[in-house]
Amino acid sequence: MMRTRFQQGLEELKSKLLEMAGMAESAIEAASTAYSRRDARQAEIVFKREKVINDAERAIDEIAVDLLAMQQPMASDLRFILAVLKINADLERVGDQAVNIAQRALDLIKCGDDLTIPIDVPRMTTAVSAMVRRALESFVNAKADVAQAVLEMDNVVDRMKDDAFVTLVREMKRDPEHTQQYLDALLVTRNLERIADHATNIAEDVIFWVRGDDVRHGAHLHLGGDQAQGSPRKV
Amino acid sequence: MMRTRFQQGLEELKSKLLEMAGMAESAIEAASTAYSRRDARQAEIVFKREKVINDAERAIDEIAVDLLAMQQPMASDLRFILAVLKINADLERVGDQAVNIAQRALDLIKCGDDLTIPIDVPRMTTAVSAMVRRALESFVNAKADVAQAVLEMDNVVDRMKDDAFVTLVREMKRDPEHTQQYLDALLVTRNLERIADHATNIAEDVIFWVRGDDVRHGAHLHLGGDQAQGSPRKV
Repeated sequence: MMRTRFQQGLEELKSKLLEMAGMAESAIEAASTAYSRRDARQAEIVFKREKVINDAERAIDEIAVDLLAMQQPMASDLRFILAVLKINADLERVGDQAVNIAQRALDLIKCGDDLTIPIDVPRMTTAVSAMVRRALESFVNAKADVAQAVLEMDNVVDRMKDDAFVTLVREMKRDPEHTQQYLDALLVTRNLERIADHATNIAEDVIFWVRGDDVRHGAHLHLGGDQAQGSPRKV
Repeated sequence: MMRTRFQQGLEELKSKLLEMAGMAESAIEAASTAYSRRDARQAEIVFKREKVINDAERAIDEIAVDLLAMQQPMASDLRFILAVLKINADLERVGDQAVNIAQRALDLIKCGDDLTIPIDVPRMTTAVSAMVRRALESFVNAKADVAQAVLEMDNVVDRMKDDAFVTLVREMKRDPEHTQQYLDALLVTRNLERIADHATNIAEDVIFWVRGDDVRHGAHLHLGGDQAQGSPRKV
């Protein structure tokens, strides 16, 4: 009976986290569009979305803590809940980065000119969003190999960021009048890179979580027996 | 008996986390010195220190997970352990930021000139280090008011970062030849700001943790009774 309520709690936790991931992803898209198309309304969407994401983070934390307090979880459930807590924190920070990008968009709009900045922000956004999506996919399906692929995608994004840096330093030297705009572009690429870092963190947590059950045989030794049947540990 | 081992585990967790915080703080100092004095040996210290910090993070995570698996913790112990897990992740990322600063230091050394950059990195470092130290102090002493003070210090650091931005954009426009060096300085101030953000995260976790026991009366209702005596919850 109690176990059933616990299992329902785990399901709720997973579905709330996926909802949170969906919000974080759409915030990235809106922020990037705000910047690329100089669209202030998309920036407003990001600012509103951030509040919802913050509330969702708190709600997920509460569910996770209540589950941990409800009964002695099995080792695998424990690791699952701890992974959710970590992923939750990363998704909230993805929302923060989207806000930073949206602020750069407003800066750019304020400048009022239509300077062409030779950085492909939409392409970098696509790569970064894919990392977040795949990191969550690796979590939902408990696939360490998908998580591993996310780590490799991070190298691609890092290269994009480094290339953007070289390009933008060149543009600033050539055209110092627009230094501010080039700098904003540089910060946007850094924000996207930080989102990629959060996706990487999530992927690493998934690998730790999935392989944990295999690798950390110590935990199995500790927590075999009655734990495996889901009854609380006697002390 | 079991409770005693559990209590020892909590003490060990706390002391390991403090050790980790000490390492993170000294990494910040070394990185900042590497940058300000163009001292490549200090940068090397940061790179070596990062590996030790990463190992410490993993070790602390393991102790925390083992404690959660060992017995049904009381609500307050549960929140303490979860706070440790979050703070641990933040300290590890402080180490990453120190590495980024040390890399900027090596970039600057490679440039080989002795350009004066009108940004007071040591002063900003002092402010940021103080935030990390006080955030940990608020945790160790369970002081929400000290944590609150950390949140206010973050505004000061944010202002330093914004002032540095304005100064550096001006310098880049005036002296585009040294754009790369000014950009490196700008990134160093961003890295310091990110360390301040991690200190802020820690302070927020402490507030959540300390006040949680007062505010979340739901948890008290759930977990009173036999929990308070330290015996496992019956289900």
